[in-house]
Amino acid sequence: MSHNTFGHLFRFTSFGESHGPLIGCVVDGCPPLIELTEADLQGYLDKRRPGQSRFTTQRQEPDQVRIVSGVMTEEATGRQLTTGTPIGLIIDNVDQRSKDYGEIRQQYRPGHADFPYDAKYGIRDYRGGGRSSARETAMRVAAGGIARKVLEGVRIRGALVQMGPHKIDRQRWDWNAVDDNAFFCPDPQAAREWETYLDGVRKAGSSCGAVIEIVAEGVPPGWGAPIYGKLDAELASAFMSINAVKGVEIGEGMAAAALSGEDNADEMRTGNTGLPHFVSNHAGGILGGISTGQPIVARFAVKPTSSILTERRSVNRFGAEVDIRTKGRHDPCVGIRAVPVGEAMMAIVLADAFLRHRGQTGAPATRWPFPRPA
Amino acid sequence: MSHNTFGHLFRFTSFGESHGPLIGCVVDGCPPLIELTEADLQGYLDKRRPGQSRFTTQRQEPDQVRIVSGVMTEEATGRQLTTGTPIGLIIDNVDQRSKDYGEIRQQYRPGHADFPYDAKYGIRDYRGGGRSSARETAMRVAAGGIARKVLEGVRIRGALVQMGPHKIDRQRWDWNAVDDNAFFCPDPQAAREWETYLDGVRKAGSSCGAVIEIVAEGVPPGWGAPIYGKLDAELASAFMSINAVKGVEIGEGMAAAALSGEDNADEMRTGNTGLPHFVSNHAGGILGGISTGQPIVARFAVKPTSSILTERRSVNRFGAEVDIRTKGRHDPCVGIRAVPVGEAMMAIVLADAFLRHRGQTGAPATRWPFPRPA
Amino acid sequence: MSHNTFGHLFRFTSFGESHGPLIGCVVDGCPPLIELTEADLQGYLDKRRPGQSRFTTQRQEPDQVRIVSGVMTEEATGRQLTTGTPIGLIIDNVDQRSKDYGEIRQQYRPGHADFPYDAKYGIRDYRGGGRSSARETAMRVAAGGIARKVLEGVRIRGALVQMGPHKIDRQRWDWNAVDDNAFFCPDPQAAREWETYLDGVRKAGSSCGAVIEIVAEGVPPGWGAPIYGKLDAELASAFMSINAVKGVEIGEGMAAAALSGEDNADEMRTGNTGLPHFVSNHAGGILGGISTGQPIVARFAVKPTSSILTERRSVNRFGAEVDIRTKGRHDPCVGIRAVPVGEAMMAIVLADAFLRHRGQTGAPATRWPFPRPA
Amino acid sequence: MSHNTFGHLFRFTSFGESHGPLIGCVVDGCPPLIELTEADLQGYLDKRRPGQSRFTTQRQEPDQVRIVSGVMTEEATGRQLTTGTPIGLIIDNVDQRSKDYGEIRQQYRPGHADFPYDAKYGIRDYRGGGRSSARETAMRVAAGGIARKVLEGVRIRGALVQMGPHKIDRQRWDWNAVDDNAFFCPDPQAAREWETYLDGVRKAGSSCGAVIEIVAEGVPPGWGAPIYGKLDAELASAFMSINAVKGVEIGEGMAAAALSGEDNADEMRTGNTGLPHFVSNHAGGILGGISTGQPIVARFAVKPTSSILTERRSVNRFGAEVDIRTKGRHDPCVGIRAVPVGEAMMAIVLADAFLRHRGQTGAPATRWPFPRPA
Repeated sequence: MSHNTFGHLFRFTSFGESHGPLIGCVVDGCPPLIELTEADLQGYLDKRRPGQSRFTTQRQEPDQVRIVSGVMTEEATGRQLTTGTPIGLIIDNVDQRSKDYGEIRQQYRPGHADFPYDAKYGIRDYRGGGRSSARETAMRVAAGGIARKVLEGVRIRGALVQMGPHKIDRQRWDWNAVDDNAFFCPDPQAAREWETYLDGVRKAGSSCGAVIEIVAEGVPPGWGAPIYGKLDAELASAFMSINAVKGVEIGEGMAAAALSGEDNADEMRTGNTGLPHFVSNHAGGILGGISTGQPIVARFAVKPTSSILTERRSVNRFGAEVDIRTKGRHDPCVGIRAVPVGEAMMAIVLADAFLRHRGQTGAPATRWPFPRPA
Repeated sequence: MSHNTFGHLFRFTSFGESHGPLIGCVVDGCPPLIELTEADLQGYLDKRRPGQSRFTTQRQEPDQVRIVSGVMTEEATGRQLTTGTPIGLIIDNVDQRSKDYGEIRQQYRPGHADFPYDAKYGIRDYRGGGRSSARETAMRVAAGGIARKVLEGVRIRGALVQMGPHKIDRQRWDWNAVDDNAFFCPDPQAAREWETYLDGVRKAGSSCGAVIEIVAEGVPPGWGAPIYGKLDAELASAFMSINAVKGVEIGEGMAAAALSGEDNADEMRTGNTGLPHFVSNHAGGILGGISTGQPIVARFAVKPTSSILTERRSVNRFGAEVDIRTKGRHDPCVGIRAVPVGEAMMAIVLADAFLRHRGQTGAPATRWPFPRPA
Repeated sequence: MSHNTFGHLFRFTSFGESHGPLIGCVVDGCPPLIELTEADLQGYLDKRRPGQSRFTTQRQEPDQVRIVSGVMTEEATGRQLTTGTPIGLIIDNVDQRSKDYGEIRQQYRPGHADFPYDAKYGIRDYRGGGRSSARETAMRVAAGGIARKVLEGVRIRGALVQMGPHKIDRQRWDWNAVDDNAFFCPDPQAAREWETYLDGVRKAGSSCGAVIEIVAEGVPPGWGAPIYGKLDAELASAFMSINAVKGVEIGEGMAAAALSGEDNADEMRTGNTGLPHFVSNHAGGILGGISTGQPIVARFAVKPTSSILTERRSVNRFGAEVDIRTKGRHDPCVGIRAVPVGEAMMAIVLADAFLRHRGQTGAPATRWPFPRPA
Repeated sequence: MSHNTFGHLFRFTSFGESHGPLIGCVVDGCPPLIELTEADLQGYLDKRRPGQSRFTTQRQEPDQVRIVSGVMTEEATGRQLTTGTPIGLIIDNVDQRSKDYGEIRQQYRPGHADFPYDAKYGIRDYRGGGRSSARETAMRVAAGGIARKVLEGVRIRGALVQMGPHKIDRQRWDWNAVDDNAFFCPDPQAAREWETYLDGVRKAGSSCGAVIEIVAEGVPPGWGAPIYGKLDAELASAFMSINAVKGVEIGEGMAAAALSGEDNADEMRTGNTGLPHFVSNHAGGILGGISTGQPIVARFAVKPTSSILTERRSVNRFGAEVDIRTKGRHDPCVGIRAVPVGEAMMAIVLADAFLRHRGQTGAPATRWPFPRPA
């Protein structure tokens, strides 16, 4: 029963609204004795932070995270270490412009959660989207920073692989290019084209969607668990819980439907690592819900921002028909800032899977080859 | 922490392997006083049952479900009613042919969970796939039958919308056609074409994937909950936990990325039902993780069956390279039998969302229009 | 998996240490549209607050609670209402005297959690007890204040019924007396005697234990659930989780062992309330884990404060034997301030039971008498 | 949300009623590669089995447990090993005498769960107590047998320390005596006296309560977790969930209230085991919710059997007053058979605590003495 909690052994609970005094989260179950400072988290938050290019919302939030519990400085070494108790994280809301919300209070913006919140609760916080604001994802990014610390030896990276209808050319994939453009795009040529494209979208007061790919390398075989704790099921839940996400794929994803069995099943050879070498990775690193030792590859699609300048038809709280133009500061492509959020959710799912695996099995080094017949 | 449990208030726990004496599950949290007999569940199980056409495995399993607890016959009326206590369901395994498993015991079939199970646990039940067998999904279908009983007024239907690379023509969608072919295909013409296609696949000892669409009508606005209990996040987890699923979509799904904000956000008008009328349903009936009152529309992709007759390269338990041809009785397209499984998971997620919503809010009739300003 | 989370549908997660910047909690699953202000919670916190008499620690903490999320002021009425989203509560630590912790850093105080924390985590926050400080209970009291709001019609009261070896005379029980003494004692004469007794204990630098009784009236029949969600099992867990508690009783409690079946089983008569009238309440309002409509009666024992001035034998972090006298500001009888904490935990368990009951059954008015035979 | 599930990482879910075809449970999260056969469990079930002396119910149930999933015989060694997948356990109900339930169907037996079940669900299984029957505890005992296998090096034993008002003399405690009498009594002289006492109770058609003590030796320091996952809170919930239990104590229990701080806090010395030696064990092996390395000592009180031959006043389903004499086969002291059940619940809580501890911390050997200052 976890409306606002994610995870099992490594779990976090977030709270706070877009225009309240602060947002926060509690990371519970973190192993002790991990070196952790605010600086370890701030870098990830800065990647997600709005207002860094003309392609994201101009809301100015420094997103300075404070660790308010769960760490202790060891006097002997001066290192700040986790203590195994819950880590409280807080980010103050700075730029929640006071204003007259006027009609927004009573109107339901198309594509937004306004109507369903009212329908469910009979009340909603209409200031900046309230709880449904993408601002909540800042806490995921902070929690994800802690999860990464738990995942020694695992490297998690994300990239935008499609903006609107425009896909990257995967032949040109260059991880080093990701930080050289405003889009986390691994294809430098696509990044240049997207710049022009997104300028057009932005100036038209329109918006577009995106597809994000997250890759985790260094995950050993054996994480995840059948049947309802499958690693891919946890990932699907994690990514689908991000604002505006409408689809999730593992490995070949939806395209797997069109493959033949011969083309899809990844063959194996003996490698020189003491583990099977997979000739391909259509599975995205997961079979039967358990990691195979291959890179975990997942993608998710983000719908176009629903806040646009074009007038749209809707209804209001009193049952009247209205026309709405959503003014204010918005991302023309929220998918961009979803990249660090996706990385964080991948980290959180994996940290949890690691601890659960260690709990049940003691997490010995993977057993292969086996000395004895089955 | 629920490796083998799914759901929160309405939850089920499954157990059993493909070639053990039986498979079973426990449905906990079901409301009392619901009329329930084995006949209510058997119809759904019969839809999933193998051996019904030349297009599914020839394993013969009657899949007769027994209700072993949680119901009581009211003497006064003769009706068998749920009592609110856990409902135990059991299906005996009948056709688990005794045989020499020989090399399978030591070999890892490509695309199967053989290697990761061994890597995780150091042991695996190699008989018919053991716990990773699709046989487990029979229990989901049975539990789904109970969930449907909880969901009075909600209609859940599924269909195959793509087989291998061949999609249906959505203009020809006819729900009545679904039961008239061996594929749960809503497009009669596509069904005829698929017959030829799948015969070819089957005779070649190959396999193909599929895309399944599940639609739930009659869900009121307000089910689901932000942020980590989002209805779409629960659905994503539910569908991704089904064997061989590699992608999950809600509404427009992955295609949402290519739409503009104008095209994607569903406009609203006042309807004549006392609730807003949505002009379109790109959102698939869910906004902000909460149902909108529109039909819930979800899709998932099933990869091609990994068991094929073509020889494939792999490794064995002892670290040697081997070539494998998977003989035995298999579905050339496991996606077909995934249709009733997908319906069941939709029902289970919705039943749980309904009870959770009722728990937190008392589940009043949806409040719209509102008498008072916000 | 909830190290720092309590409850299911109505659940709260606490964080923070004794000497960090703040303590906090997140209350999740609260129904919407409940009027809630900080003033609603402050009264309960003031009851628990230290430094109010010479019988509690002289640490000065105003314990001002701030609600930082989950509420919204309705413009039309000016009422602050819960929105159904997570309610964040924060209390700043004000009086965490900066000092040299010196030997405490390396020593294990007898009766304290010092050694087991180090044994478990390899590190501990030794400042004021860190996470194991009774300070954490302030958050329970705040969360309990919200739970009370959910429990319309239920009245929860607590009292100290034994201090050290001195029990009250239950014939003199007067709820009105509880607030007239420093001990929450319902027996005015005992309260006077305890004053002398506790002064002696305090001056001797010693400490004593206590027994607290919590009574909830107005709980309808039907809350709680077999088998592992029994109302009494949840209460036992709730009370045992309070610092220093070593025993929990429901109704007759441990004394039930000495009764005969005739004396123990509460007889029933038809009342004039539309529900059975119980002639006695040995069961403490719970049968089979489900409320009967009688008052819920529970007790718990608090051990004597482990921090005492007498020198005690112990060991330190380096494996050496040491002698310890625990200086500092302590409660000679921590049981006193456990009264509002016990009330809060009762409220939290009942609010959760209410929502879970409503979720599964729809919570109709209790069905008795029944029109039809079973 | 676990009405019928207990535990987190090591968890079990039970189902089945007293007079249905069978009872069963699913043990999830068990580590793999543990040797496990039905014989390992049967011994514990035989201890709990009714009909073994004149002091327990004469219902004849062989209580033969079947393992129906989650194990696999290793061909090379012939050993049956756990596979890490859910272990299904089933016990057939054999002696559920078919009879006319007559008035019981409509009447509420005092002290039984009859009325609250009806009040909650509007229906109840009146045959032999249905779900509230002590028969369910057989599944706990079976699950506890598996938990013991997980707990290598931990020894769990239970004893009856009070029958009705008659306590044992703890000076005479002899664990070897426990199996030499019909009461699991560790005091041979008390056992002889109880025989006479209980014969009198039985012949009078009356009943009596009991107190059970469970001791676990060999638990290392560090299991359990603050704040709401405290080891003692989990134990309190576990024992209170057993039928008829009304009180739970850890270490000194309720008597701790009457001790002084000097007498209660266990002093420590350096031992010769590499861990602190505690001079006493008032804490019952738990401080701050975490094990100290001392024996875990817990007690619980069982109320007298509510089914007695004396006529008692009650009401029926239709709202009429009735007089009830509960005929049938009953235990005059259900506390006796609660001993193996208590042992099982201790084992289950500890197995779960062990796996959770291993998950979060990696469960290194306890760190003491420490090489470095804090």
